Amino acid sequence: MASTSPGYGITIRVDAPASAQPVSEITQAILAAGASITALDVVESVLDRVVIDVTCDAIDAEHAEAITAALSENKNLNVRKVSDRTFLLHLGGKIEIASKVPLKTRDDLSRAYTPGVARICQAIAKDPSDLRRLTIKRNTVAVVTDGSAVLGLGNIGPGAALPVMEGKAALFKRFADVDAWPVCLDTQDVEEIIRTVQIIAPVYGGINLEDISAPRCFEIEARLRDLLDIPVFHDDQHGTAIVVLAALTNALKLVKKDLKSTKIVLSGVGAAGTAVARLLIANGAKNIIGFGKDGLIFEDKGESDPMRKWFVENCSPGAFRGDLSAAMKGADVFIGLSAPNVLVEADIKSMAKDAIVFALANPDPEIDPALARKHAAVVATGRSDHPNQINNVLAFPGIFRGLLDAHITKITDNMLVLAAEAIASCVSSEQLNANFIVPSVFDPTVSQKVAAAVKKSV
Amino acid sequence: MASTSPGYGITIRVDAPASAQPVSEITQAILAAGASITALDVVESVLDRVVIDVTCDAIDAEHAEAITAALSENKNLNVRKVSDRTFLLHLGGKIEIASKVPLKTRDDLSRAYTPGVARICQAIAKDPSDLRRLTIKRNTVAVVTDGSAVLGLGNIGPGAALPVMEGKAALFKRFADVDAWPVCLDTQDVEEIIRTVQIIAPVYGGINLEDISAPRCFEIEARLRDLLDIPVFHDDQHGTAIVVLAALTNALKLVKKDLKSTKIVLSGVGAAGTAVARLLIANGAKNIIGFGKDGLIFEDKGESDPMRKWFVENCSPGAFRGDLSAAMKGADVFIGLSAPNVLVEADIKSMAKDAIVFALANPDPEIDPALARKHAAVVATGRSDHPNQINNVLAFPGIFRGLLDAHITKITDNMLVLAAEAIASCVSSEQLNANFIVPSVFDPTVSQKVAAAVKKSV
Repeated sequence: MASTSPGYGITIRVDAPASAQPVSEITQAILAAGASITALDVVESVLDRVVIDVTCDAIDAEHAEAITAALSENKNLNVRKVSDRTFLLHLGGKIEIASKVPLKTRDDLSRAYTPGVARICQAIAKDPSDLRRLTIKRNTVAVVTDGSAVLGLGNIGPGAALPVMEGKAALFKRFADVDAWPVCLDTQDVEEIIRTVQIIAPVYGGINLEDISAPRCFEIEARLRDLLDIPVFHDDQHGTAIVVLAALTNALKLVKKDLKSTKIVLSGVGAAGTAVARLLIANGAKNIIGFGKDGLIFEDKGESDPMRKWFVENCSPGAFRGDLSAAMKGADVFIGLSAPNVLVEADIKSMAKDAIVFALANPDPEIDPALARKHAAVVATGRSDHPNQINNVLAFPGIFRGLLDAHITKITDNMLVLAAEAIASCVSSEQLNANFIVPSVFDPTVSQKVAAAVKKSV
Repeated sequence: MASTSPGYGITIRVDAPASAQPVSEITQAILAAGASITALDVVESVLDRVVIDVTCDAIDAEHAEAITAALSENKNLNVRKVSDRTFLLHLGGKIEIASKVPLKTRDDLSRAYTPGVARICQAIAKDPSDLRRLTIKRNTVAVVTDGSAVLGLGNIGPGAALPVMEGKAALFKRFADVDAWPVCLDTQDVEEIIRTVQIIAPVYGGINLEDISAPRCFEIEARLRDLLDIPVFHDDQHGTAIVVLAALTNALKLVKKDLKSTKIVLSGVGAAGTAVARLLIANGAKNIIGFGKDGLIFEDKGESDPMRKWFVENCSPGAFRGDLSAAMKGADVFIGLSAPNVLVEADIKSMAKDAIVFALANPDPEIDPALARKHAAVVATGRSDHPNQINNVLAFPGIFRGLLDAHITKITDNMLVLAAEAIASCVSSEQLNANFIVPSVFDPTVSQKVAAAVKKSV
């Protein structure tokens, strides 16, 4: 799994005597260090010295240091500075506010601010339904987290979660022209979270819950859905489930199997895993066997978590009591939303013919997809450096575009199923193959089709 | 006070036979109705009919209807549609989010989102002081209201307040490149307001409290200043006070009087009035006589409001027990932050020679400035259609620019005084006259100078 990533891109500024063939020396040193150059720039040439900016991707932070060291060790080269491209990108944050109205003259101010704005306030005070028409509520979603389950990093808190929320907001705008604002809550108390979201709700046309740990996220979403008249959507649950269903639909179409008759093994029964199971069951799946941190899920250990109760009732392994490897024997589908390396090659080999493997643990999947591809018909991960990337960005922008435009107040399972169908339909029969079961995130028709499906669902 | 306002601008679409001289008919009808045309556009000419968009400002909504009726009554003209320019401007809100980072390729996504963003989260989790460097906290302010005291409209609630907050955010960006986000709270409980702002604080580098009624606003600001490590600034209090002090400084310079020896009558002892008194006292004023809704303020009626206690102790009228008119006799300065028409012409006439009158009630001042100008040396209002507009927009953008750039955590009175001096200094001695005591809001040096003053104050 040791490939370089643009997420670890660095730019190194090096100076050297022009006579020392610095470009060649730099290139060789970087190659020898196991990276490749993505950009090279002679930025300055003074007397007999040249200054060169060389950019390359590293595997991780250690590798970035090794690359820099390889250049430093060359006595002809002087390393002046190393800039981490990802850090540079984040200085001062990734989003900003823009005014949609002119503010050049007093007349502009009189309309956008006092005294003109007072009439808009009065209109809304008189008819609160005008709030959506006359304010940003029409197009704006809150991205709400408490930082308790951020990416693969766990409970890092609201401040450390903010870069993810900013990124989410940037993606909402880029892919569906939805305005999204980060709301990072400095509390992990379920009651406070619910009450705070209720209190800030007037500005927003929808709530996207993000990176809130299970099982708290289930209660928070359910209670907010009761309390608010705007839609509430926990993307880690439903966004993931939608894209998994879309990908699985296409993969099953390819291998000519029917969801109803497939044996599905699910590793990871947290927020995403549970939501995936619910959506698959809603779409006709009948045989899902689930594994959590402590092994097979087959009984409700007296926990009060209603989602776990639901899972136990609907995803029974029957009489089976084995471990993950044992369950994989003869399975048609593996879906992993858990942790790295819970599977070995032999597990994939023991699956049914034309097996489908979705190893979605982030950043390192349940099994090396290259190994899985030796035995399975279709392999997908959450990574951008492998084909078939199961990426929530295929779902949430279009979902909220549709919710906002159709003024939908409640989200239904049917809506999610239709959204999944819309995503799957972006891959035509001619395009469908083992390495193309979901559309590219840059396919502009995806969010449009998803939004249309959501609007049609009501 | 019946002048037309761009805040009541309308665009009327009219069609008429070309032969009927429609432009002339329209112009005459509008003039007769007491308005003047600001724009005229022949948008279409088909066969013998022309379609004309005519734009004009009205005095108020009734007048707008009268103008439209005047056109309808003309049998040559057919009124197709009337568009209210202010309402049109507000459709879908006045601000939006923009991404500051490219999102065109997978590499872009890998840096702005997963997996690259995870490293930024880890850096912040490891060193929380990096939050300001690597996120929007560096440049972002929350504009927080509960909608309990919006403009001159009173308690209209959080939804109806949103257009004002959006406008505020647009002004922050326009005048100081500060990113500001509307936070409209669906609660008026002081404890809930304080707790909610504390919970959402991680994203923000500063808090601007707005349109929260007195005396609750005093406690909310004071308690949040204790709880948070970011600056908290109630603009209705301190922004107003800063601009009033700046204007008064210049007006006194003009009439060659000293703040220490002036008799100041203050009408309105709410949030703004109290803050004005505090800042004037901090700057050396010694004789302020205050009037509230119930008349002269001279004793603490056992209220628990600490601000009223402070006022009674510091702005004593001595033995005087008269009404507003009586207090105006021989006064050097009148500052009104109260209600329309609390003064009559005779009150101004009875003031000292070279009197200064700041009639700042919004939208209708304590006295018609035209009347005041007959007797006072310098007259200012909050209106944009009179000279000397006392407008908070001269203060808050530069204030927060300075606070954010200098990473200031606590606001001091000295900071406010220096900001006032900076604003006053934007009017040079050569420029200073009775109709120019504060700079134009469009003077780009204002926010720069205010920011510089704030930074220098620490």
